[in-house]
Amino acid sequence: MTLNEIENLARDVFQANGCDHSNTEALVRAIVSAERDCSMSHGLFRVPGYITSLRSGKVSGDARPVVKAATPAIIAVDGDNGYAPLALELGLPRLASAAKELGIAAMTIANTYHFAALWPETEALAEQGLVGLACVCHLPVVAPAGGSEALFGTNPISFAWPRPGRTPMVFDMATSSMAQGEVQIAARDGHEVPIGTGLSADGEATTDPKKVLEGVLLPFGGYKGSAIAMMVELLAAGIVGDNFSYEAAENDNGDGGPARGGEFILAISPERLAGVGWADHCEDFFKRYMSIDGTRLPGARRHKIRSMGDTRHVNAALVEEIKSLLD
Amino acid sequence: MTLNEIENLARDVFQANGCDHSNTEALVRAIVSAERDCSMSHGLFRVPGYITSLRSGKVSGDARPVVKAATPAIIAVDGDNGYAPLALELGLPRLASAAKELGIAAMTIANTYHFAALWPETEALAEQGLVGLACVCHLPVVAPAGGSEALFGTNPISFAWPRPGRTPMVFDMATSSMAQGEVQIAARDGHEVPIGTGLSADGEATTDPKKVLEGVLLPFGGYKGSAIAMMVELLAAGIVGDNFSYEAAENDNGDGGPARGGEFILAISPERLAGVGWADHCEDFFKRYMSIDGTRLPGARRHKIRSMGDTRHVNAALVEEIKSLLD
Repeated sequence: MTLNEIENLARDVFQANGCDHSNTEALVRAIVSAERDCSMSHGLFRVPGYITSLRSGKVSGDARPVVKAATPAIIAVDGDNGYAPLALELGLPRLASAAKELGIAAMTIANTYHFAALWPETEALAEQGLVGLACVCHLPVVAPAGGSEALFGTNPISFAWPRPGRTPMVFDMATSSMAQGEVQIAARDGHEVPIGTGLSADGEATTDPKKVLEGVLLPFGGYKGSAIAMMVELLAAGIVGDNFSYEAAENDNGDGGPARGGEFILAISPERLAGVGWADHCEDFFKRYMSIDGTRLPGARRHKIRSMGDTRHVNAALVEEIKSLLD
Repeated sequence: MTLNEIENLARDVFQANGCDHSNTEALVRAIVSAERDCSMSHGLFRVPGYITSLRSGKVSGDARPVVKAATPAIIAVDGDNGYAPLALELGLPRLASAAKELGIAAMTIANTYHFAALWPETEALAEQGLVGLACVCHLPVVAPAGGSEALFGTNPISFAWPRPGRTPMVFDMATSSMAQGEVQIAARDGHEVPIGTGLSADGEATTDPKKVLEGVLLPFGGYKGSAIAMMVELLAAGIVGDNFSYEAAENDNGDGGPARGGEFILAISPERLAGVGWADHCEDFFKRYMSIDGTRLPGARRHKIRSMGDTRHVNAALVEEIKSLLD
């Protein structure tokens, strides 16, 4: 499908399911940017889940997010029970202004449903010359290191570093061994997952993605990755004042769509902190990094895909499923 | 040795090697707090390295750090070519004030030599009800994932979460598979290290800590840990405007002591962001975490050791070495 066809399909299905113009367009931009970058687990793959929660009435299709400056350095967004993309689009310009003015600022987003990648928000900050860091928690599917009971969400963290005149360095990764969307796609396509991805419901190591989905995922990198996953949980829920992953599950209506939660976003101006010359200083570092055999810069593969024409492979059964949601 | 004897030994050796009162007392506090918590690789173990760089003239024993507010949210400390503890003690109260006022603030420390743990600074913030995050880079000893050439330092990151009325949740971990101090101690004591800790000089996996010290360490957690290590490098050097790890090596006099570098510290007020009730909300999360079999809260073991009397085991050869530095 062309990106234009993907855009039209997404627009039609959100409009047909009660989303107003502002929410539809923000959601469409989130989905098209994911498909454009072949970030497939956050593109059309998410549409059935988005629609499920609009239909169940859990998520509002005509949410009007409210953006306030809690302090000159803190932008607080109340998402009005809607999906995150519109709340983000309304809040990010305020966050960027505050960070440019003060050198650092943070944004909390509460009362929303986040079901997309995080790199769109961190990249948007990097394109304005700011360092961006974002994280969310979600439903409890990851056991803390040493345990076999789920407590953490897959708790992704994204970090983007501005490179004036170039695409930014961006990573966006689950703090679980694998993103849940990736495990779901492996289960759908009948692929195995590596040992260490997760445990089955009886606490045993397994390579079967279906068994992992019935059991628990594990954090990446053992105790250290588990500490990072806990940090994400505390920032996205404790600092924002919204649901921890286990609370999200307790408060959810079980419709299969995303659960309510918060997002924490940090923006820092390297120009205000390190001063003139920061970009050249950092480019020398990136050059050194890329000169080492076997390495690749996080985000580079996605940015390369972005520039490769406007046709993308899309799962045919998924497209049929989405078309069935137009009625 | 008692903590009092450790304190006196440290005081004597710094004074005998040209440290003035302010710098001596700040260094002594850093060393005693490490020994008190059995954070051995940052206690007396570091003294010979501290003294080496005072004697070579690389580090100034009478540094007068200068603290400025670059913006209301950014505290910038110039360490005046001294060791980090005094710069930290002068800057942290300003950082805490700014974070309480604005909800978030950051501190950059440049032109210092950091050779201690990071938890003293993040815990100090947590004891004031603030979330603290700190990171530094150092000499290049860690290869980015996929490579076998050192670029990153062991790049530790510490994160502390305030728990009013209790000791905070604190982690402080190298983003390498193992801290270099731990590898050095394993080499000294003749212990093996796990496969995955690092590569020998010829790029082969090894369990010999001496071979790892001649070769490269690896990041924890593969590509994801490598991304975190890169983030630390960019915050501690790019944002601070001081040496990346590879620059620290190029600019060092090779005396075997610590290399010059920056530190990035972030402070956030959960009370300003999440409002009243944040502490109870988060205590429920910690309770849930601790109820899972097999888990332990980061920092808890160190805090338990802290309360266990005032006598600590100290390596006898190390004490003799330090005494020889009194002349």
